[in-house]
Order: sequence, then C-alpha cells, then structure tokens
Amino acid sequence: MIKASLVIIGDEILSGRTEDRNLVYLSKWLGKLGINLSEVRIVLDHENAIIEAVNDLRKKYDYVFTTGGIGPTHDDITTDSIAKAFGVETRIDDDALETMKEFLAGKELTEPLLKMLHIPEGGELIYSPATKAPGYKIDNVFVMAGIPKIMQGMLEGMYDYLEKGDIVHSKSLEIMIGESFFAEDLTNIQEKYPNVSVGSYPFSRDGVYGATIVLRSTKESELASCEFLVKELIAKL
Amino acid sequence: MIKASLVIIGDEILSGRTEDRNLVYLSKWLGKLGINLSEVRIVLDHENAIIEAVNDLRKKYDYVFTTGGIGPTHDDITTDSIAKAFGVETRIDDDALETMKEFLAGKELTEPLLKMLHIPEGGELIYSPATKAPGYKIDNVFVMAGIPKIMQGMLEGMYDYLEKGDIVHSKSLEIMIGESFFAEDLTNIQEKYPNVSVGSYPFSRDGVYGATIVLRSTKESELASCEFLVKELIAKL
Repeated sequence: MIKASLVIIGDEILSGRTEDRNLVYLSKWLGKLGINLSEVRIVLDHENAIIEAVNDLRKKYDYVFTTGGIGPTHDDITTDSIAKAFGVETRIDDDALETMKEFLAGKELTEPLLKMLHIPEGGELIYSPATKAPGYKIDNVFVMAGIPKIMQGMLEGMYDYLEKGDIVHSKSLEIMIGESFFAEDLTNIQEKYPNVSVGSYPFSRDGVYGATIVLRSTKESELASCEFLVKELIAKL
Repeated sequence: MIKASLVIIGDEILSGRTEDRNLVYLSKWLGKLGINLSEVRIVLDHENAIIEAVNDLRKKYDYVFTTGGIGPTHDDITTDSIAKAFGVETRIDDDALETMKEFLAGKELTEPLLKMLHIPEGGELIYSPATKAPGYKIDNVFVMAGIPKIMQGMLEGMYDYLEKGDIVHSKSLEIMIGESFFAEDLTNIQEKYPNVSVGSYPFSRDGVYGATIVLRSTKESELASCEFLVKELIAKL
C-alpha cells in the first residue's frame, strides 16, 4: 500500500479563521491513484514546527505534501524551512525566473516576486498553471500553495512523479439506528472479511441517531460479499 | 502563553469522506479562554498512530484534546489506545454505569453500551449532556466524541479544568491587490510591532487576487496602532 501524508502550514487554519479545503481534495485525488492519505499535521508558520513535521513524515511515508506559506510576504517561510529540513540552501530557479520575466514583459521584477522563485537546492520545479510562481518537489516532499485553486493546478504537475497503487473501492450504507444496537453484528462481519475495512460513522440528524457503514477494499468481489451481509443486517433491524 | 493541541482520530476524515468541523469550533472556544491551538494531527483508527500522536503532544503542549473513536463499534479504539499511551488498564466507571442504568430504566445493558463506560485508570469523567456515554480527562489529555454536537457538550464540562490565559485580540482588513505589491511595506509594519502577529492570507475571488491582513495581539493598544498603519497602507494602494 502506498501511503502519503500532508502538512498544512498556516496560523489561519489553527486559529479557526480559515477552513482548510485542501485535505479533502488531495485525499480524493490521491485515492484515484491508489495512494492512501494516512496522516495530516497542521502546524503554525513557525520554522521549527515545519521542519519537525516534514522530517518526521518524510521518513514515515512514501510521500509528503505540504500546502501554504510559499507566497511573497514575511510570514511565508515554508521554502526556507523545507531547505533547512534537508540541510540545503535555497536558490533562484533559472526556469522559474525566465517564465516570470516573460510574464512581466518589462515590468519590474520586485523583491517579493523574486522571493517566490527561490526553491531549495536539489528541488525540481512544478509548473503552476494558475500563477507564475512554481511549486516544487524535493526528494519525496511536494510543496504546494495554500490557495485551493492554485494548489489544485500544481498537483496536476506532480502526477508523473507518483507511483500508482491498487485502487481502494468503497461502498456506503446508511442505517437509521444507534450504533450500540448493531455493534456486535458488525464486529462479526468485520471478522469474516479481514480484507475489507468496515467503518461505522455515527451521526445525529434531527435528533435521531444513525450511522453510515463504510466498506473499503482493493478486492471488489470480497467488497460485494461483505456489502451483501451488511444489507441483510440493515434489513433485519 | 497557554498552548493546546488536537488529535482528530478517524479514517473517515483522512479518506475525505467526512469534513472535520471540530477544529474550528475548538479553536474559537479555546481562544476565548486565552488558550492557543498550536498543532493538530489527524490520524487513522490505528492503535500505534493514536498512541504516538498523544504521547508526542502531551509532552509538547499544556493540553491535548482528542475527538473521535469512543463509540460502541469495533473500530472505536481510542480509549484502549489512550490507556496504552499512559501504560494503564481501562475500567468501567461507577458513576457512568449508574447514570446509564438510570437512563435505561430496566432495559438491557448490552456489551456495546458497556464498552462506552470504560475509561482509563486515573481518568476523570466528563459528563456528556447529549448522551449517557461520557468523555474523560486523564492528566492533560481530554478525550471527546467525534460527532460535533456531542463533542461541544462534553467540552463545556472541561471548562473548569483549564487554566485561562491572556486573550488574543484580532483585527482583519481586506486588501484587493496581489500580495507582491505590498509585501515589503507589510514587513516594515511587522518589524515595528513585534508584539503583534501580522499575517497575510491571500485569496482569489472571481479571478481577482487579494489578501486578508490579520493582526493578532494580547496588547490592545499596540494592536490599534498597528491597525492604523495597515489602514494607511491600504489607502495608499
């Protein structure tokens, strides 16, 4: 199984001011490639926090994605932190510089713009269709912008770098009764199908408790047999 | 500064099937007490993942909150994992058992219901107004349900256990121009006010780039002076 992790970088996410929308998008996008998002860390715009998260996760998982903190302002410190995590310097990327100069067509290349063209040594440029400031890949770490539209564009440029795994198929079934009434039966079903992950996700809707049973597996025939048993259980209750 | 962290436990969050809504609520609730949410980890319903996250974070931060995985089904493994993180056993809490028996009024106390009454040794019960299954506190770790309404109820029961800090005040100002046009001026303002955190959060709206400048500080007068300078900057551009 190919496993990925995500580091969401930004004070504004932790303060609750901005709701992250990249996790769901990235997870579904990776899922279609058979890559499982297995851990997420959300950290402040602090150098040590970024370095620690990236260095922990790049050892533990096949891939690490990061979002946020690669813009032109003083609080954008992701690239410097990633460089320190790898023990390298940053440098202006020649291709990125050329692309930006073409785009500016004679207008001034200011310091803030120049800042966004720096990437860590050893990094490979990832084209950003939405802007002229790039994302990049260094070893197994993929660095992206935080604005969802820009992040989504950069992600497409990362496709060719990623190994593809077995696709996980899933089925969801709703059951309108509290979990404690079917927990034991569901345990039995899980035990019968070790290759299917059987999850129960409770909710309350208009004061009534229910749960969504989610079945996930790379093996379609086992998934179908398991689904049959869950449907029987729901019919019984 | 009092710092907290959050461990969100659940495969369904990482798969992108369910969007977490507890982070924003918790962060704002803690903010009113002067407690800063400083790191979040989202982990799978896997014992080792939960143990590692909880043990890392309870050393690093004043408080750790967890959401998810304390229901009655086989995939609810948070309590067993927390007990292992602390090296203790779980036991049925007497008060929780009494409350549940009263609630059931003679109806059968099934195994799944009993499961939810277990808490790790040394833990203190946190009453759950929305259900008869409790949350709990063990050392500096606060364990809550994942369903937002239930989590919010449990959180109120944790209020008395928390030390209160200096409230962080904030101001938000929008600027409808790309960040690279004001990055240098904003750096100067940040340098003038080291006690104010000056953040710039870019967005694109109908194809136009802009940013929200967020000023945060425990010192209200410095915040007001800093805000004045940012307003001047916006007027200039």
